[in-house]
Amino acid sequence: MTTVLALDIGGTKMAAGLVAPDGSVIAHDRVATPPGGDAETLWAAVVGLLDGLVARTGTAYDAVGIGCGGPMVWPQGLVSPLNIPGWRGFPLLDRVRERYAGDRPAAIHNDAVALAVAEHRWGAGRGLENVLGMVVSTGVGGGLVLGGRRIDGSSGNAGHVGHVVVDPDGPACPCGGRGCVEAIARGPALAAYAVSLGWTGAETGVDVAAGARAGDPACRAAFERAGRAVGIGVASAAALLDLDVVAIGGGIAQAGDLFLDPVRAAFAEHGGMGFVRRCRIVPTGTGPLAGLSGAAALVLPPDDQPT
Amino acid sequence: MTTVLALDIGGTKMAAGLVAPDGSVIAHDRVATPPGGDAETLWAAVVGLLDGLVARTGTAYDAVGIGCGGPMVWPQGLVSPLNIPGWRGFPLLDRVRERYAGDRPAAIHNDAVALAVAEHRWGAGRGLENVLGMVVSTGVGGGLVLGGRRIDGSSGNAGHVGHVVVDPDGPACPCGGRGCVEAIARGPALAAYAVSLGWTGAETGVDVAAGARAGDPACRAAFERAGRAVGIGVASAAALLDLDVVAIGGGIAQAGDLFLDPVRAAFAEHGGMGFVRRCRIVPTGTGPLAGLSGAAALVLPPDDQPT
Repeated sequence: MTTVLALDIGGTKMAAGLVAPDGSVIAHDRVATPPGGDAETLWAAVVGLLDGLVARTGTAYDAVGIGCGGPMVWPQGLVSPLNIPGWRGFPLLDRVRERYAGDRPAAIHNDAVALAVAEHRWGAGRGLENVLGMVVSTGVGGGLVLGGRRIDGSSGNAGHVGHVVVDPDGPACPCGGRGCVEAIARGPALAAYAVSLGWTGAETGVDVAAGARAGDPACRAAFERAGRAVGIGVASAAALLDLDVVAIGGGIAQAGDLFLDPVRAAFAEHGGMGFVRRCRIVPTGTGPLAGLSGAAALVLPPDDQPT
Repeated sequence: MTTVLALDIGGTKMAAGLVAPDGSVIAHDRVATPPGGDAETLWAAVVGLLDGLVARTGTAYDAVGIGCGGPMVWPQGLVSPLNIPGWRGFPLLDRVRERYAGDRPAAIHNDAVALAVAEHRWGAGRGLENVLGMVVSTGVGGGLVLGGRRIDGSSGNAGHVGHVVVDPDGPACPCGGRGCVEAIARGPALAAYAVSLGWTGAETGVDVAAGARAGDPACRAAFERAGRAVGIGVASAAALLDLDVVAIGGGIAQAGDLFLDPVRAAFAEHGGMGFVRRCRIVPTGTGPLAGLSGAAALVLPPDDQPT
């Protein structure tokens, strides 16, 4: 019976939780990621979050799992999240291990890889062998389970579906490339596009989604464009990997069909072969706390579900 | 000591060989794939090829391995190669098994998957764990070894890098999609593009390559365009999979730097993150008979090399 102290670090928020062996979150807290914070300011926010949770729930956990935005030096856990400029090569795993894990097992992975593992074990990919898990939020991340196994890649950075190119002459991407899914579909890019078309409301994904639901044409066009970029990227991934399912979570994906309809339309346009068309595109099945379940899954032994 | 009767079926040629356990080809023959042939005409060509080889080398082989253009129903081996319209759901594995294998083991896979396995075991991916093998020829195929294991996907069709989208508003692709790598970079598309720019020589990849080497601007532009499409597709694959190496073979790739220079230039433009840029793009290391070595590798037990 393993209970896991789980940490999920994103560009907008940080979450911590105590996770049961079945992936359910027993208790959790969250704080905003300090905008523009330097390395130690960011770390202080992590300590505040984890200290608060542990004070409330006690230290009766058996392992520590961390999901964090990529890229990172893996498995050592020196993190350089694209959307958290204050951390470049920051030793997040070592810091957490020293203060919270002691002799307990501790592991870190890309937050979207953690999500993919959770989706495969408990969510939309349960019982399936070939799963792409995606997070469309401040950035666009992903993780892969293929043939029932987590795919790490040469340096632990496999799964970066946000950097599949979908518009070769498109906008510059934070990664240094051009026309990546993330350059077009991440929340800030989606909102900026709505503003460029005349949207005068608040420049966040949530507000643009509300605008789109209310029929604002700029907001609708922004979701169309972001969804189309994701759909093309997913069609490429499905052709390359012969996937069973693509499970999409994150703040932008929470807009539901407003987002998934253009994703599926672009996928249908570009996914030609039968094996590609069989791949399903669905919302994540592990709910809004999937990041914590996923971080825990990194250190939870496989249960009796298909893995 | 396993010797394999190997068969390699492509849109332009069919090859058969006797392959030693180290992947070396002891004897081989080839014939042109009958253009526009119906199912039995194509099968008669296979029989002629294999009967001729076996008459020359004898029946002292221990297993039969087949590589064939995709897609196919796998592992059953009902093949529907995009570039061989006469075969749609053709039971190639069963036919070969009945006539040539008897009780010996027999297996089939996508020809580019077979190539990737050969490259991982004996070629440019030797000693590495994350390998994309590509064939740029009449079509554009691919196969994947990730974490040291062959990736099959949900239905045996993983590796179709030719159907990664690189120009969403680009030309229609034989797969039913639009703007795929294959729609732009396959030999016939490359040659047709050269003709559209004024090339009046023969409309084949080999002739256009000769034209490009002689300085013909239409031929040079055609290789630039095809190489750029492949480079963008490879950048997407490397971001998604965190690859060690991409090994490219096939008739168009035999043009060497004429082709690989624009591939690498587009890769450098679109591959932003450090882990992507570390991926090397090289010619296949298993030579012009790689297809036969790869078909054999499907039924050869792993040797003492890293696998």
